[in-house]
Amino acid sequence: MTPIGNLKPTIKIYDTTLRDGTQGEGVSLSADDKVKIALRLDKMGFHYIEGGWPGSNPKDMEFFDRIKKHQLKNAVITAFGSTCRPGVEPGQDANLKCLLDSGVKLATIFGKSWDFHVTKALNTTLEENLRMVEESVAFLKGNGLRVFFDAEHFFDGFKANEEYALAVLRAAVLGGAEAVILCDTNGGSMPFEIQQAVEQVAAELPGVELGIHAHNDSEMAVANSIMAVQAGVTQVQGTVNGLGERCGNANLCSIVPNLALKLGYTTIPRDNLSFLTELSRFVYEITNLNPVANQPFVGESAFAHKGGIHVSALMKEPGTYEHMDPASVGNVRRVLMSELSGLSNLLYKYKGLNLDKTSPEGRKVLEQLKKMEHKGYQFEAAEGSLELMLRKAMNGYREPFQLQSMRLILEVREQQPIHSEAVIKMRVGEEIVHTAAEGNGPVNALDNALRKALETIYPEVAALRLLDYKVRVLEEKAGTEAQVRVLIETGNGKETWGTVGVSTNIIEASWQALADSMAYGLLGEK
Amino acid sequence: MTPIGNLKPTIKIYDTTLRDGTQGEGVSLSADDKVKIALRLDKMGFHYIEGGWPGSNPKDMEFFDRIKKHQLKNAVITAFGSTCRPGVEPGQDANLKCLLDSGVKLATIFGKSWDFHVTKALNTTLEENLRMVEESVAFLKGNGLRVFFDAEHFFDGFKANEEYALAVLRAAVLGGAEAVILCDTNGGSMPFEIQQAVEQVAAELPGVELGIHAHNDSEMAVANSIMAVQAGVTQVQGTVNGLGERCGNANLCSIVPNLALKLGYTTIPRDNLSFLTELSRFVYEITNLNPVANQPFVGESAFAHKGGIHVSALMKEPGTYEHMDPASVGNVRRVLMSELSGLSNLLYKYKGLNLDKTSPEGRKVLEQLKKMEHKGYQFEAAEGSLELMLRKAMNGYREPFQLQSMRLILEVREQQPIHSEAVIKMRVGEEIVHTAAEGNGPVNALDNALRKALETIYPEVAALRLLDYKVRVLEEKAGTEAQVRVLIETGNGKETWGTVGVSTNIIEASWQALADSMAYGLLGEK
Repeated sequence: MTPIGNLKPTIKIYDTTLRDGTQGEGVSLSADDKVKIALRLDKMGFHYIEGGWPGSNPKDMEFFDRIKKHQLKNAVITAFGSTCRPGVEPGQDANLKCLLDSGVKLATIFGKSWDFHVTKALNTTLEENLRMVEESVAFLKGNGLRVFFDAEHFFDGFKANEEYALAVLRAAVLGGAEAVILCDTNGGSMPFEIQQAVEQVAAELPGVELGIHAHNDSEMAVANSIMAVQAGVTQVQGTVNGLGERCGNANLCSIVPNLALKLGYTTIPRDNLSFLTELSRFVYEITNLNPVANQPFVGESAFAHKGGIHVSALMKEPGTYEHMDPASVGNVRRVLMSELSGLSNLLYKYKGLNLDKTSPEGRKVLEQLKKMEHKGYQFEAAEGSLELMLRKAMNGYREPFQLQSMRLILEVREQQPIHSEAVIKMRVGEEIVHTAAEGNGPVNALDNALRKALETIYPEVAALRLLDYKVRVLEEKAGTEAQVRVLIETGNGKETWGTVGVSTNIIEASWQALADSMAYGLLGEK
Repeated sequence: MTPIGNLKPTIKIYDTTLRDGTQGEGVSLSADDKVKIALRLDKMGFHYIEGGWPGSNPKDMEFFDRIKKHQLKNAVITAFGSTCRPGVEPGQDANLKCLLDSGVKLATIFGKSWDFHVTKALNTTLEENLRMVEESVAFLKGNGLRVFFDAEHFFDGFKANEEYALAVLRAAVLGGAEAVILCDTNGGSMPFEIQQAVEQVAAELPGVELGIHAHNDSEMAVANSIMAVQAGVTQVQGTVNGLGERCGNANLCSIVPNLALKLGYTTIPRDNLSFLTELSRFVYEITNLNPVANQPFVGESAFAHKGGIHVSALMKEPGTYEHMDPASVGNVRRVLMSELSGLSNLLYKYKGLNLDKTSPEGRKVLEQLKKMEHKGYQFEAAEGSLELMLRKAMNGYREPFQLQSMRLILEVREQQPIHSEAVIKMRVGEEIVHTAAEGNGPVNALDNALRKALETIYPEVAALRLLDYKVRVLEEKAGTEAQVRVLIETGNGKETWGTVGVSTNIIEASWQALADSMAYGLLGEK
């Protein structure tokens, strides 16, 4: 795919998930989390990993201590900080001292390049700011560090006072900065503005390595980063999944495939692109955020087709409704079931079940599907429940068990921890089983009791593992009387499947999804 | 703010939330939902509202019937469809007939403009496709409709066979199309490609009104739409919140403020922009999707500041870290509490509580905050719990009630519906209250019992309303043993507040959040 004799420059990927990413709402990482993410980024072949701002909080310093014990293959760890303060010599500045103490070989320091910020936020003179930039960079260089300079608010500064913004960049270069990074800190710039400014800077500072650091406040961070590369920058700063303050930083999960697969630049090793989806989900998991389903390239819906017309075209030729092969970024094509989808989707999905377009079972399931979706069920992530429904509609399927009665008791007494107990009575195969179990919560107690009831007749339940449990409140404005939808993901070591339950009662919804998860797992080899 | 003597053209906003938006994963709208959204879009001053694809499903036809009964102020309702099929006369085509039957005055039909699609997906000749386009447009025109033509896959087609792609546009114009819309159907194009192609089309088809319809598969839909406008299109198609198939359509909630507030174009009436955030949340509510917190312009985090350094600069001058005034799009500035935030944020937030930088209470709360965040608590949406914690740390606050014991029983018997009952014993003021209540789920039963226990001493609980109840499973991979975080939003008609609880037991977490929600509501006039 790479053009032969490619003369495009290598674009260095600079990740700041561990620093700017943690400024995002709801993002909080322990030192241990940070080490895990850094090792993964290194494995992916990212060029620079900004680990934190030593001195701003104790966790960041702990990260720098711990990451030293690992031998990285590809990435250089960097520490972030600011120039010295107004009126202070670099050698006397606590912040710069922390950068030296962190033990990194490369530091990125930011300074003001917007005159308004120099006078309003720093309360100092334009001249003094130039001194701070040049001397701070020179101080770190003199102490043996490589230095990058982040020109904060560069594009706003360039619009307000072009000459001064350029003077700040020149001060950093004079101090010895190896690269200057143009930051759209407030995220307000348009792609054509970025392009024009970068072209002009490249002309004014020939031979200086330039970078881009964009924020997404105008939904332009990815476009602005790409336009900057087209205009001459060779370093792109961003975060995994675009995490970051306010609307986030530029999303490396979109920038890297755009650069590598669409524009033919060399970035991270080409083979590693197929781990991009995995990287995205790994970072969501560690940061404990819900993945964004419709996220470009790596989202669960990124290659999910719902319109019946799309699906029938895709069956002929995938290129008709996909801009690229999902496998190139480690993602997969999905076909969604819904009232819009028509029979094409059902047929594509259950090729193995011998349904055809005129099949009465197929039509019956589609009808039932529409009714259940209306009630709040959603089968897009619950293909286990969908297949059970399909099998029930076809002849020859008998449910492996059936609930007869159930009682859940949760009790708190004085200062004691809460106690949860489930009692169930059910038909299992041909027998009636009556049993009970405790758990650390109502659903866990129910899960334990269900497994206990099943295991004598179906010992294979021991291999089933609940992998994920999600609760979604529907019609949220109704408060605690609202409908809830429970989605459960279960695996047996070989495959995983999703099941769903819906009720105003969270316990009932959980029971439905749990029961389906076990029933599907007991289908045996399919 | 609008430049005097503005010579920029008016950009018409064409909304397809009700058609292309419903192709998004998890999006399903009833005819009633569609009417509600259409009326809201009309009120906002959108120029065109695409209501659906009559004939593709019964709900869409029902929408067109119902919307006729409303007098719209600004918008023209359009119906979507395709050209006639290969080898079929427009007068004999069922799909075109449905467009006439829908009773709209303006139809948008799509046709193929990529040669590969004509031969691969339609299985017909390039010549026949030109006939289909021209005759279908002419047929609708002849029946008294205004017609827009969506050139599907235009940018891919233009790359593959420029001459043919232009011939398709010319056929539509020849048939009488009032505007031709260039679609990046697979979402794979880069902003500079869009700009070049639009400039070339504008030169080849002088005087023809052009539109853009972009998808977000490369995270470029907003940038591509803006670049197309800069290159000469005067109609922008998109959806509220960027809903749509795969990675979604171009997000009108970002495009409209970029055009109007940053680039000085006339779009919807300027005053209506301040309802943009409300529109975004309204559509999330109707589609029953979780709002995207870091969504540009309208997201809850869009103007949320976490870094202590940002907050102290903002206290001096909001322009330092905001690209625009949040109020101009109906959003608000927020200051977040977290371990990164430092005392500046706490002071900004609780100006009224007489804390100062050296206050031991402030530091104590900040310490406790860090510990609780570590356990999984999050106060960014639970300021009620945060303020209670702060008040407990200060002298003179006594909790209005305290739980002594609680028992919850959930029971299913044979085919009966599930029965939920809560029994609680607690200190309320100086009394011990022991009472019980039922509910349609465990949390509802608990809520009812708590209110019953409180109401004799605190009759004001009757005015408190639970507005929202959210459950988030933390460490999701642990299955049903995972920690859950419950967030509750409560209101008293004058203000609303959020509270939080965290436990492995969903009932315990719900209880914590419920108890805080009532305790905060009983604080009285603050």
